[in-house]
Amino acid sequence: MRAAIFCGPHSIQVAERPEPVIGAPTDTVVRVVLACVCGSDLWYYRGETDYPQGAPIGHEFIGVVEQVGTQVHGVARGDLVVAPFNYCDGTCVHCRAGWTSSCINGGVFGAKGVSDVMCTGHHAAVSAGVKRGSVVAVVGDGAVGLCAVIAARRLGAARIIALSRNPARQALARSCGATDIIAERGDAATEAVMHMTDGVGVDATLECVGTGESMATALGVARPGSTVGYVGVPHGVEIPVNTIFFRNIGVRGGPSPVRAYIPELLDDVLAGRIEPGRVFDFETDLDHIAEAYAAMDERRAIKSLVRVGRI
Amino acid sequence: MRAAIFCGPHSIQVAERPEPVIGAPTDTVVRVVLACVCGSDLWYYRGETDYPQGAPIGHEFIGVVEQVGTQVHGVARGDLVVAPFNYCDGTCVHCRAGWTSSCINGGVFGAKGVSDVMCTGHHAAVSAGVKRGSVVAVVGDGAVGLCAVIAARRLGAARIIALSRNPARQALARSCGATDIIAERGDAATEAVMHMTDGVGVDATLECVGTGESMATALGVARPGSTVGYVGVPHGVEIPVNTIFFRNIGVRGGPSPVRAYIPELLDDVLAGRIEPGRVFDFETDLDHIAEAYAAMDERRAIKSLVRVGRI
Repeated sequence: MRAAIFCGPHSIQVAERPEPVIGAPTDTVVRVVLACVCGSDLWYYRGETDYPQGAPIGHEFIGVVEQVGTQVHGVARGDLVVAPFNYCDGTCVHCRAGWTSSCINGGVFGAKGVSDVMCTGHHAAVSAGVKRGSVVAVVGDGAVGLCAVIAARRLGAARIIALSRNPARQALARSCGATDIIAERGDAATEAVMHMTDGVGVDATLECVGTGESMATALGVARPGSTVGYVGVPHGVEIPVNTIFFRNIGVRGGPSPVRAYIPELLDDVLAGRIEPGRVFDFETDLDHIAEAYAAMDERRAIKSLVRVGRI
Repeated sequence: MRAAIFCGPHSIQVAERPEPVIGAPTDTVVRVVLACVCGSDLWYYRGETDYPQGAPIGHEFIGVVEQVGTQVHGVARGDLVVAPFNYCDGTCVHCRAGWTSSCINGGVFGAKGVSDVMCTGHHAAVSAGVKRGSVVAVVGDGAVGLCAVIAARRLGAARIIALSRNPARQALARSCGATDIIAERGDAATEAVMHMTDGVGVDATLECVGTGESMATALGVARPGSTVGYVGVPHGVEIPVNTIFFRNIGVRGGPSPVRAYIPELLDDVLAGRIEPGRVFDFETDLDHIAEAYAAMDERRAIKSLVRVGRI
């Protein structure tokens, strides 16, 4: 089979790899039909985190089940499946509590879109405690940030302030449900949100970037007693304990327990009530997957869709 | 009037101070009847944080209203009042949302027992999301930790694991509602709690100390997706973002919004449903207040009650 291979920073190549086989009786072989590039893939793509050269990449896909092991229940050959960044058994104590991202028998795929970007934005909103009537700030205008706007609106937020400097993304944020746009960054962004909320701050802050600056902005606009829901894989993030303690700001988030969220969110996607697919503004095929990464790296694309095969 | 004065580390003296007068029309003069020493007073008592020498100390008291300003509503001369560590107007946007500790027009007294220790333990439990059936760990066997045990039981926790090495405090923790005691400290304590919970960790962790070691233990025993409620004023506490992110551990807490909690908790105290007063195991008068501090500093006392006057 063909696979996308990481060949060092800014270098992605398509190469032949051995056909996958059932190794354990709980294995399943899935033929990828659609895949996409995750914002978290950009960390190793840019050389900012380690990733083994020569290893296959990607962790968000939709595919068709080709083979199942003898102990596989729940999916059968020919099923169309959605896979997020991790797999889980669905039966351990953490899965039963809804924290499928902490599955005792789970792990991380070596592929996320509809498959986990919407669930990640939703996790930011759930972690921050968004509810009907909330005033929400979303830090980050990438695919996760835009999905966080969709999630906040879906949960009934009354006001959604999106932080974005890019006119095209501002427009997309508005179409996803943002009621206000803040184009400033850093301290100026904090001041603008505080001014917009009469000095109070917001009821729920959704941090969808994962940098020190984005977390500082998120903590700065949070009103006393509120929670920052953060889902961007942290890089250089520090949580200043005295700042959050004396203002009673909660910090909560992590990898989205995607498997637990998919049923309700997929229902809404299929019914057309939410449209996370609008974050895709670049499309290519497996042969040109390097361009899918480059477009996101250069911020020419919000999120790249890769058409790999047919159903 | 006489007041307790801070004269440098380990030195408390009683001295004459000017009689208090109504300065602003919103002022009230209260004659202190009962006071107590707060665990947070020990930081400056030990010289570990700054506090102005020659300044009056204490911030937890019950007293009788002697004078009220012309714009004071809600209390009148002769009323018996309970005061926590801070004051608030009860009407600003943060007070109306229940976060009286962030009152825009509020501040910190230069006196806490029944007055705020129970509310602080309760805040740890509320922040950690304790609910009916929860498995709870309480880190810290001081007055706040013991009140956190009372609060967790009051909120319906099914199992309350108290971390304490001191036999007298272990017995008191049990009488407050602890179902299990862990005498280990540090990594051994984490291992013991994990073993006790079949490797899962606890549903809610109440951190009632405020040191780096106590926070590390609290984060170590928290199950994926749970929240550490922390109320000990942080000293040397670091929140390791990668540890909490990848396990989806929430961190939430701060100064207790005491004024918002007092009505429901005081009802339970007066009805005898909870007995936070059992944390007092040392009693003296104003003349001997230095001994009240020394007893807590040397861990001879859990909490010192100071009888100042009569109702």
